[in-house]
Amino acid sequence: MTPVSSLQQLVEQRIQAFRAESPVTSLTESIVYLMGIGGKRMRPVLTLMGCEAFGGKADQALDAALAVEVFHNFTLMHDDIMDQAPLRRGQPTVHIRWNTNTAILSGDAMLIQAYQLLAGYPDHQLGTMIRVFNESAFGVCAGQQMDMDFEKREDVTVEEYIEMIRLKTAVLLGCALDLGACIAGATDMQMQHLRQFGEELGISFQLRDDYLDAFGDPEKFGKQVGGDILADKKTYLLIRCYEKARAEDLAVLRSLAGKRANAEDKVATIRGIMIALEADREILEASERYYQSALTHLDALNLPAASTAPLRQLAAQLLERQS
Amino acid sequence: MTPVSSLQQLVEQRIQAFRAESPVTSLTESIVYLMGIGGKRMRPVLTLMGCEAFGGKADQALDAALAVEVFHNFTLMHDDIMDQAPLRRGQPTVHIRWNTNTAILSGDAMLIQAYQLLAGYPDHQLGTMIRVFNESAFGVCAGQQMDMDFEKREDVTVEEYIEMIRLKTAVLLGCALDLGACIAGATDMQMQHLRQFGEELGISFQLRDDYLDAFGDPEKFGKQVGGDILADKKTYLLIRCYEKARAEDLAVLRSLAGKRANAEDKVATIRGIMIALEADREILEASERYYQSALTHLDALNLPAASTAPLRQLAAQLLERQS
Repeated sequence: MTPVSSLQQLVEQRIQAFRAESPVTSLTESIVYLMGIGGKRMRPVLTLMGCEAFGGKADQALDAALAVEVFHNFTLMHDDIMDQAPLRRGQPTVHIRWNTNTAILSGDAMLIQAYQLLAGYPDHQLGTMIRVFNESAFGVCAGQQMDMDFEKREDVTVEEYIEMIRLKTAVLLGCALDLGACIAGATDMQMQHLRQFGEELGISFQLRDDYLDAFGDPEKFGKQVGGDILADKKTYLLIRCYEKARAEDLAVLRSLAGKRANAEDKVATIRGIMIALEADREILEASERYYQSALTHLDALNLPAASTAPLRQLAAQLLERQS
Repeated sequence: MTPVSSLQQLVEQRIQAFRAESPVTSLTESIVYLMGIGGKRMRPVLTLMGCEAFGGKADQALDAALAVEVFHNFTLMHDDIMDQAPLRRGQPTVHIRWNTNTAILSGDAMLIQAYQLLAGYPDHQLGTMIRVFNESAFGVCAGQQMDMDFEKREDVTVEEYIEMIRLKTAVLLGCALDLGACIAGATDMQMQHLRQFGEELGISFQLRDDYLDAFGDPEKFGKQVGGDILADKKTYLLIRCYEKARAEDLAVLRSLAGKRANAEDKVATIRGIMIALEADREILEASERYYQSALTHLDALNLPAASTAPLRQLAAQLLERQS
């Protein structure tokens, strides 16, 4: 098994080659820009790990890994327009630095580039890879649509929320792993378990991220703590509060919805309600349940412990990074 | 050979089935809407013709035909945002009827749906089909970018203009034909000639459309005659005028650029310059050259005359519709 840091280096080199090979046109310069402003490159590393777990060489999976990262950045480029986000990883977003039309069109081009990167694989692998990729790609769009729909709804359930984050975030982790596994010759059954591992890990990760957004250590957490609360984002935490709150708490929650003034008071008050109603405990328990369930799918692969060790290690890192 | 009207009916039935099978979600309702407001369905018919020319059954090519039409409508959905177009085929555009975010996201989903429709073909065809489709799809984005770039430039050449319409309009016709041909087992060489036929036919068609936009019979031409002139669109006609005009005409052209008042005067004046400089004759000659060259690629296929007759017939119809 190649160490994680070496896999990250391989991915970074492949991304830099992709940027360097790109023709200098007004269609591609924003793509080169966005692909260059960093990120954890977690998804492409998963593709390489999925390949190595089944005895393949990381090199074989590099184009598929890049396809996943290009796709992920396509979703960022378009989501940033939809969310009117001015910054991405501390840099101006594409629709701000260029304009909305460029961000729409270059995003479209990136989605096609992802398929171009996959199209180099041999016929006997390509069909499965395209079908796995299609399903996840469509799922990511459906998840983004659900997320936008939730903003206008008051009655979102925990089940709907989990389905939204599964689609918007988790399926691409499963897809990333499966593409690598397919290249190394994994069976359909193995690919199913690996996809489940990736999806449940993704849900577990997102739930923990939601928890940290409200209760994380401001020193360690990358984003502004309380951002979700302030923006009335209907995460697991807030949904559970609305479900469990009695009259008095419910009145407070409703009175604070949509308020932007007295940000610190709002965050402190809602955090208090979350703790009183034990939504904080519940979300961590849910995250843990998905984490444990994810691991059972690694066990079901029937691979030597050494083959899945990097995946277990990465999963542990992802989930314990702030604990 | 199936008559063109029957092929159109097959396509229409497949489109209606696609709309009926679509789940009712906020992601897909705008897709169902746009796919339902008509259009000539020329591209999917070309896919069926490409298949039949090489002895395949039209039915086999229906999913690929639908993929091309879904892709085409994806480009319309996103182009209409970029062009701020309020109407499409007389109906409100998606970004007007819903909103920009829906038009961005549903367009993305359509691009993925096109690949989903292709993904049902067997492995030994899929690789070629995906590569043909990828190249055209990326080309269409590059063409749209060139078109937008041209708005800000004064020095666009005729060669650049031809390359822009080749990418934006013509490559998808070549792709549509080639997908059908691939399904019926055409060779690489045959697919190359068929693609060239489609591309040159597309360029010929677009040049004629540019001519009709300026000089067509208002009774017969679907759009407002003079629309391109009024919008200062740098078509072949206007580019040739700028290239050939002497001092006086050049001064008139420049003084009218950007003007929206006195629309009729502007159109009449610029039309007069186009005629005086023989740009009208040149564009028709260029259209005819591409048409004749397109036909030589049909000859090069070495197929029985009956096999390519429907393609010749469609080409003649397309080019002579207003003459």
